Parts: sequence; C-alpha cells; structure tokens
Amino acid sequence: MNAAGISLPEINLPEVRAEVTAAFERYEKALVGNDVDVLDELFWNSPHTLRYGATENLYGYAEIQAFRKARPSAGLARTLGRTVITTYGRDFATANTEFHRAGSDRVGRQSQTWMRTPEGWRVVSAHVSLLA
Amino acid sequence: MNAAGISLPEINLPEVRAEVTAAFERYEKALVGNDVDVLDELFWNSPHTLRYGATENLYGYAEIQAFRKARPSAGLARTLGRTVITTYGRDFATANTEFHRAGSDRVGRQSQTWMRTPEGWRVVSAHVSLLA
Repeated sequence: MNAAGISLPEINLPEVRAEVTAAFERYEKALVGNDVDVLDELFWNSPHTLRYGATENLYGYAEIQAFRKARPSAGLARTLGRTVITTYGRDFATANTEFHRAGSDRVGRQSQTWMRTPEGWRVVSAHVSLLA
Repeated sequence: MNAAGISLPEINLPEVRAEVTAAFERYEKALVGNDVDVLDELFWNSPHTLRYGATENLYGYAEIQAFRKARPSAGLARTLGRTVITTYGRDFATANTEFHRAGSDRVGRQSQTWMRTPEGWRVVSAHVSLLA
C-alpha cells in the first residue's frame, strides 16, 4: 500500500484464475467449432467492446457480432502455444496466447482483456495478429 | 446487479478516464521520443507483464526492458488514428489505438491493458501489430 492507501490487487487468486481459465477454454472451443452463439455470449455486449482482428478492426459489439455471423466456418482449427492468463483482483484478467494454424508457419497471437459482469466473465477488448 | 450481488463496474468515470488518458499520452510521447526511462516506468514491473510486438513476443518485464534498451531510436515517429480509451471502475482500463508510420500504408494497432498500482497507472499487457 502507498501513502494514499492504494494497494496492488491480488494477482492470480486461484479460484479467480480457474474461472477465467474456464471461460478462456470455452471461448477457444467455440472459436474452432465456429459456435457463434457462444462467441457472441462471451464478448461484452457494449458499444465499448473492441476487437482488432488479423484483417479487420471492429468497434463495438454490433460490428463484432456482424463479423462472426458473416465469417466462413472453414479453416478455424488451430493449436495453442504458450498461454498466459493473469488475474488482477477478482474482476479483471488478461489472457494471451500464441497459436498456429495447419498449413502456416506464422505465429499467431491472441490477447483478450476479461471483466466480470453480472452475466459472467466477458471479453471487453481483444487483439489478434500474426507475427511479422 | 444480479442475484449474487455482482454489479458492472462504472464505465468511463470522467476523473478515472482523464488519468488513464494522461498516462496513455505520456506513453505515446515517450515512445516516439524513445524515452526509455518513461517507457520502462509505465510498464508494470512484474514477471506477469507481457508485450506482443509487431516482430517479437516478450514475456515478463525483464524481456520488455531488454527490448527497449536494444531498440534503434530511428523510425519511431507515428501519427495516431482512432483511439478508444475505456475505464472499468477505478482501477482498470483498456487503451486501443490505430497508428500510421510515415512511408507505410499499413494500419498499425496498439492495445494496452492498464492497472492502477501504488506507483501509478501501469500497462500490464500490450499487443502491437499491423493489419494484414
């Protein structure tokens, strides 16, 4: 704690990290299976939600939802590489992972910021890209 | 609030957003000026901190600091495009911005997750990439 009474949140509380890990894994399963309902569910339904994809920048939940709906379901399979999930206190987390798609040598990276909402853990910001 | 008593954090409280915006702008100025001390200061000094750059994946504060130190200071100038800063309660925020470098047509994207620490606002996770 500093002089103003500000403490660092507790990092990686086991029960919080388990919750976020479960949400992250649910998202991954939905992504490779193109389960659009679950993908939609796990993004925060807000105009503030943002997703930078490999080939598009999407601002607000409506743009993200429209993108999911239009996306071809082929070629979504991937394997995850190094994954780092970190929780900050009880209500915020980041999930970062490397991934590889069959037939590509390029390293993908997926970053998500998660927030606890009354409806459950939701992604409030995401960024997906391929290493140059 | 839901049945379990969980409420959504207050989004974009003006005074919190002003703090994060100031930190974001300080970071941007340090980046284009290659002010390594300020860049180091504004990343959380923790093994949990992570930065996916356009050409490298850096795990932990030490790797990020070593990258800053070794980076050539030329060619860092850029102009920002659309910027979205969102705060969640009093202690967490995301800052996302598009950017353009002189001599390149490609759209850059920078995502940061910020946390309030006893020492001030710090980036706990960052992802920088160019749109494919």
